[in-house]
Amino acid sequence: MTRIKATIEYDGTYYHGFQRQPGMTTIESTLVEAIQKVTGEKLELWAAGRTDARVHARGQVIAFDTNSSIPPGRFARALNAVLPEDIKVLQSEEAAFGFHPRYDARLKHYSYLVYRQEAGRVFYRHQAYYLPYALDLGAMQEAAARLQGTHDFTSFCASGSGARNKIRTVVSCRVLERPPFLQINVVGDGFLYNMVRIIVGTLLKVGQKKMVPDQIDEVILGRNRALAGPTVPPQGLYLMAVIY
Amino acid sequence: MTRIKATIEYDGTYYHGFQRQPGMTTIESTLVEAIQKVTGEKLELWAAGRTDARVHARGQVIAFDTNSSIPPGRFARALNAVLPEDIKVLQSEEAAFGFHPRYDARLKHYSYLVYRQEAGRVFYRHQAYYLPYALDLGAMQEAAARLQGTHDFTSFCASGSGARNKIRTVVSCRVLERPPFLQINVVGDGFLYNMVRIIVGTLLKVGQKKMVPDQIDEVILGRNRALAGPTVPPQGLYLMAVIY
Repeated sequence: MTRIKATIEYDGTYYHGFQRQPGMTTIESTLVEAIQKVTGEKLELWAAGRTDARVHARGQVIAFDTNSSIPPGRFARALNAVLPEDIKVLQSEEAAFGFHPRYDARLKHYSYLVYRQEAGRVFYRHQAYYLPYALDLGAMQEAAARLQGTHDFTSFCASGSGARNKIRTVVSCRVLERPPFLQINVVGDGFLYNMVRIIVGTLLKVGQKKMVPDQIDEVILGRNRALAGPTVPPQGLYLMAVIY
Repeated sequence: MTRIKATIEYDGTYYHGFQRQPGMTTIESTLVEAIQKVTGEKLELWAAGRTDARVHARGQVIAFDTNSSIPPGRFARALNAVLPEDIKVLQSEEAAFGFHPRYDARLKHYSYLVYRQEAGRVFYRHQAYYLPYALDLGAMQEAAARLQGTHDFTSFCASGSGARNKIRTVVSCRVLERPPFLQINVVGDGFLYNMVRIIVGTLLKVGQKKMVPDQIDEVILGRNRALAGPTVPPQGLYLMAVIY
């Protein structure tokens, strides 16, 4: 039995999120089907993060066990031959004994893309959030810096989330101009449900001067979802990398 | 009666090209339907260029006549309210008397995008041609320069085209690095059927050292489709602008 670790990318536009759901086409169900086709085995699949419907990945990490004779490094090519064109395996290798993509993850890096011009928007409608307003990037960067650190992120967690411990460490939160996009990068040791999308919604509220950067501290300390900004839509979000 | 000129962009992925065809959803049929919805009138629509299925536009120009009371500059917003999300009107205005988007065009600018990295390809599958090979850009630029000028472009015209006169002027043909893409820009006074896609296919053949830049002259002089490179796929092609 060999455990395979694979790094995958996908355009989440046409999937009902990562996680398997009865009767729905999800990233997980599509991957499981492809792996079964290639190995002929039943399998269990683990992933670093469960992305929501329309959310993308450029560096999702999965693992599965197999008795197949396919060399670990060859799984990428073998799976790409049967996967649909919006899911690709970038790399595959033998995993360390007992490796689990989610529990062993030290850090996750998410990016969120905002597209601000009218021209070109049809090409980015599934890949970025269209927000054609003036934004004060300096204020957004200041607010982003205040989110860095170890905090109780209750205010940045979708209500109804089952997580008991809402303390997380954001090691980096940055707002960058990456033409044609505004890119918001968030790296942390773990994320609550919708946390990145609420962080981005809050930073965009600051950018639109509906909130000042200093208020971020109050939002964190208030531990109340209503204090933070809105949850931005899913299509701008990318799971970029998982660091072990 | 007012003649309206409008500049539009579209993602051509899910359309059977620009031109109306019975029983097919095309860019033209979708535009006509939207304009009729907004004006309540029957109409004729003219366009600068007929793009093929899966080909995109960032600056297609259309015109139509209307008795509507909508101010010419307001048509953009009115039409965008009823158009699907993959077609947008960027600008609308009153056209000069007798204006025809195709016959009055002096120059057309097309771009072709090539995506060369494995990582990220799922996001560009409908927007660029994936070609993961090493390319000699210097040789491509040299070949591109040789295509500039007034020539008989028979070798760069899909066989079966009805055009009698195959002499066209390419005022600019350039190969540029536009990360994450390689971008090939072609500006000319008119284009034969598939001409841009055959020019790009020929430049990529030079880039892959299957042809040397000097051979371009022979390809042009030979007036034989078989001498040029292959027709590259449609999804990398964009009608960028029409110059009047």
